[in-house]
Amino acid sequence: MVLDRLVEALREGVRKVSINQTVLEHHSKALTYHKASTPDVVVFPKSEEELVHVVNIAKQFKKPIVPFGIGTSVEGHIIPYHGGIVVDFSEMNEILSINPEDYTVTAQPGVTREQLNQALKKHGLFFPVDPGANATLGGMTATNASGTNAVKYGTMRQQVRKLRVVLASSEVINVGSAAAKTSAGFALKDLFIGSEGTLGMISEITLKVYGIEEYSAVAKLTFNSLQQASEKTQQILASGLKVSKMELVDAETIDIINEQSQLDLKVAHSLLIELTGSKEEVELDLSLLQSISENSTCELQFETDSLARAKLWQARHNAALSVAAANPGKGLMFTDVCVPLSKLTAAVMHARKVVDLHGIKASIIGHVGDGNFHVGFAIDQNDEEELALMHTINDQIVQFALEVGGTCTGEHGIGVGKKHFLRQEHSTTLEIMKGIKKLLDPDNMFSPGVLFDMD
Amino acid sequence: MVLDRLVEALREGVRKVSINQTVLEHHSKALTYHKASTPDVVVFPKSEEELVHVVNIAKQFKKPIVPFGIGTSVEGHIIPYHGGIVVDFSEMNEILSINPEDYTVTAQPGVTREQLNQALKKHGLFFPVDPGANATLGGMTATNASGTNAVKYGTMRQQVRKLRVVLASSEVINVGSAAAKTSAGFALKDLFIGSEGTLGMISEITLKVYGIEEYSAVAKLTFNSLQQASEKTQQILASGLKVSKMELVDAETIDIINEQSQLDLKVAHSLLIELTGSKEEVELDLSLLQSISENSTCELQFETDSLARAKLWQARHNAALSVAAANPGKGLMFTDVCVPLSKLTAAVMHARKVVDLHGIKASIIGHVGDGNFHVGFAIDQNDEEELALMHTINDQIVQFALEVGGTCTGEHGIGVGKKHFLRQEHSTTLEIMKGIKKLLDPDNMFSPGVLFDMD
Ligand SMILES: Cc1cc2nc3c(=O)[nH]c(=O)nc-3n(C[C@H](O)[C@H](O)[C@H](O)COP(=O)(O)OP(=O)(O)OC[C@H]3O[C@@H](n4cnc5c(N)ncnc54)[C@H](O)[C@@H]3O)c2cc1C
Ligand SMILES: Cc1cc2nc3c(=O)[nH]c(=O)nc-3n(C[C@H](O)[C@H](O)[C@H](O)COP(=O)(O)OP(=O)(O)OC[C@H]3O[C@@H](n4cnc5c(N)ncnc54)[C@H](O)[C@@H]3O)c2cc1C
Repeated sequence: MVLDRLVEALREGVRKVSINQTVLEHHSKALTYHKASTPDVVVFPKSEEELVHVVNIAKQFKKPIVPFGIGTSVEGHIIPYHGGIVVDFSEMNEILSINPEDYTVTAQPGVTREQLNQALKKHGLFFPVDPGANATLGGMTATNASGTNAVKYGTMRQQVRKLRVVLASSEVINVGSAAAKTSAGFALKDLFIGSEGTLGMISEITLKVYGIEEYSAVAKLTFNSLQQASEKTQQILASGLKVSKMELVDAETIDIINEQSQLDLKVAHSLLIELTGSKEEVELDLSLLQSISENSTCELQFETDSLARAKLWQARHNAALSVAAANPGKGLMFTDVCVPLSKLTAAVMHARKVVDLHGIKASIIGHVGDGNFHVGFAIDQNDEEELALMHTINDQIVQFALEVGGTCTGEHGIGVGKKHFLRQEHSTTLEIMKGIKKLLDPDNMFSPGVLFDMD
Repeated sequence: MVLDRLVEALREGVRKVSINQTVLEHHSKALTYHKASTPDVVVFPKSEEELVHVVNIAKQFKKPIVPFGIGTSVEGHIIPYHGGIVVDFSEMNEILSINPEDYTVTAQPGVTREQLNQALKKHGLFFPVDPGANATLGGMTATNASGTNAVKYGTMRQQVRKLRVVLASSEVINVGSAAAKTSAGFALKDLFIGSEGTLGMISEITLKVYGIEEYSAVAKLTFNSLQQASEKTQQILASGLKVSKMELVDAETIDIINEQSQLDLKVAHSLLIELTGSKEEVELDLSLLQSISENSTCELQFETDSLARAKLWQARHNAALSVAAANPGKGLMFTDVCVPLSKLTAAVMHARKVVDLHGIKASIIGHVGDGNFHVGFAIDQNDEEELALMHTINDQIVQFALEVGGTCTGEHGIGVGKKHFLRQEHSTTLEIMKGIKKLLDPDNMFSPGVLFDMD
């Protein structure tokens, strides 16, 4: 009865409202190990006005709202554990303006990164943040996502210039500035970046974009041991060589990629390095890289053929999805610590030891140029023992990272899966975070239970 | 009587406490047009414990606290308009650790940027943020300062990894992470960057640092008209050339610099451009720059001699100070708008028209690679008419910037001088800013009247 009235009230201001079973189910779970939970209703707004209507109705019916980009977040962020209204942004997918002179673009939050890059291409521009899924700009902003290019271009935080946000009060605010920099007051924009849907719904995003690099080259270094691969990362960065990507893919993952993508990459612990710039610059950097790699325990191979290069990055990009495909029906876990560079090798080797000790088949992949890496593995989420083991492994990996001054999440965010780690990492400021949540969302309407529990 | 007790109470936990008249006066004013106001007392803490003591005593005596770096901020930030305790950070000036492998440094807030760079040099490292005064890291963090290198390296916001902050509650908190990136919870670190002393006292700062560039070259382009100089900025950036500095210095300023620094630079509207990288890279970029400048209305000159180059940057760096030196006894005003690059020329020409219309002798200098520029002039701050004229000019320049999507301050901050502009620029969020202030500093103890007035 209440549901009928809720749906009816939503329909008064939103064209697409669904209680179709398949739609509800699609919005009840993720690829990961987190348990499913079904929303009351899913809405697909097309405009800011429709978002405001949703907020008003949610308040009236005291229902939570969970913003949903395309659902690829990996810590259960978008699972509606308290039911309510899932707001799916897939129909707010318009690129509003591309401003080549300003190197900016303004878009609706449902635009995906591939869609954006497709549109930017004809202007000779590109957007660098590239999580290994075709995520939405809204989801990427709300998790402060990054990817292979962060080592050169930074994360979402460095790209977002301006946001429009629909608040729990149903006010629409502007934060940030279209200018390249500003010192005008508190950085509220940065508060919304990484807020994981808990402070409001992002309705418009202005991003910095970049000229497409003139030339790029890829070097693949393969090693007999994981330790050597990780140490080489540190050595290359210490040399001052400016890489635009630096990715570690361990032998276990290469094996899975080969199988899933019908490739025959050499099965070895690998560092994939991209160098970009003018042809001359890149060639200089390649020879520097060669000299750093001489007399060492690795094999260096340049990938000059553009097709082979594209294949290699595609394979890297699909690494996590390959792990998923290799484990149908299972729930995925990706750890996501990020440590100071000087601690990278110790952290990687510790993680390897932990999974080996527990006899788990796991992949290690990482944006190691930033000190960020993932241990990926699959479990049966209905098996309590496997779940417990998974938590033990994740715990040990995170504890090590925190001990050496790192963070429990480099890019995936907290969601519902890492709340205890957030509590630990930010023990001195969790109450301030809650105070800010209370200030902006006094009734805990947006994504309750994500990041922390309000008491 | 109360003052005696206050001083005594402060002395119980802080070694250096001063009510010396010269010291009070030094902390009562700035180089700028803002009226002076004397504090009750100035303290010079050496440690975080001493800071905590100051907070406790301030609470007990219901006195405001105004943090003071080295006093070079230009919007009256550090003038204690409500009296109370000025906390001078000059004795918290220790560099705590330099971590070359991590490309980070941890320092106390009173360390100046020149002191930091001196220490980094022997590790082959440098810190890029360089306001035209030898400011402190605490002051630079609290204003989100930038300078000539921001076009390549970004502002303070992009450099600060981690902070320790002493709050009004006298708790000491950690915000941010030593890791290169994190998505763990709300970005409280970013809230303190640019908070202008209103949310707490920064007691420790961890910053990103960079390898010293191998090679650099400077090109000077001179123009007959300001419009041409500004248009050339846009054209060079649109070409995709990656500059590490791009500074506009108008003919009026060159004239003043020549006079104050005994130089004989050609008196013309000038663009100073720095290119950095390997020698080969820089030479490639120089030839690209040359080809962009051909057939155009400017004169291009390469400064290859390292002494001449150092002199040129020194002159640029001292431009604002030269304006000050040329006007002894007067109060300075530096406007500080930042606009989207496509609006730069219009904004610069509008500003020139405004000062010309009012018959004011003014300098235009700017970090134009970011769309940021200053109009600098001197007035007699005791002359109400001159003050009013100054406000009119500033108003018109800021209104134009806001109309074209820019910000009222690119790097100087709001202080007490730009509160009405903050209100205008962030009309939809000022109440949120006040809410955050209230949350962290319920009694309005820190720098009351800076950024906004609490009611
Ligand atoms: C195979 C695979 C590889 C991945 N690789 C990476 C990687 O390299 N780097 C990385 O950072 N992440 C990676 N991820 C994680 C994921 O892609 C990112 O977290 C991404 O940012 C999520 O975007 P989304 O559009 O799927 O958002 P969702 O998962 O739909 O939502 C993510 C969060 O954002 C909120 N949200 C979404 N839209 C809005 C909005 N408009 N307003 C307010 N809040 C909103 C949601 O409530 C939720 O809290 C990977 C995931 C997978 C499955
Ligand atoms: C000649 C000249 C040229 C300049 N050029 C530039 C430029 O190119 N770019 C630019 O950005 N600025 C420039 N400025 C402005 C000024 O140098 C910057 O604002 C600088 O960041 C101020 O640093 P400071 O150490 O002098 O801080 P102060 O002026 O002492 O303080 C600035 C603010 O920071 C707060 N503060 C200081 N220390 C702390 C702390 N430990 N904890 C909390 N709050 C604190 C103060 O309360 C105040 O609000 C220039 C100024 C002059 C005079």
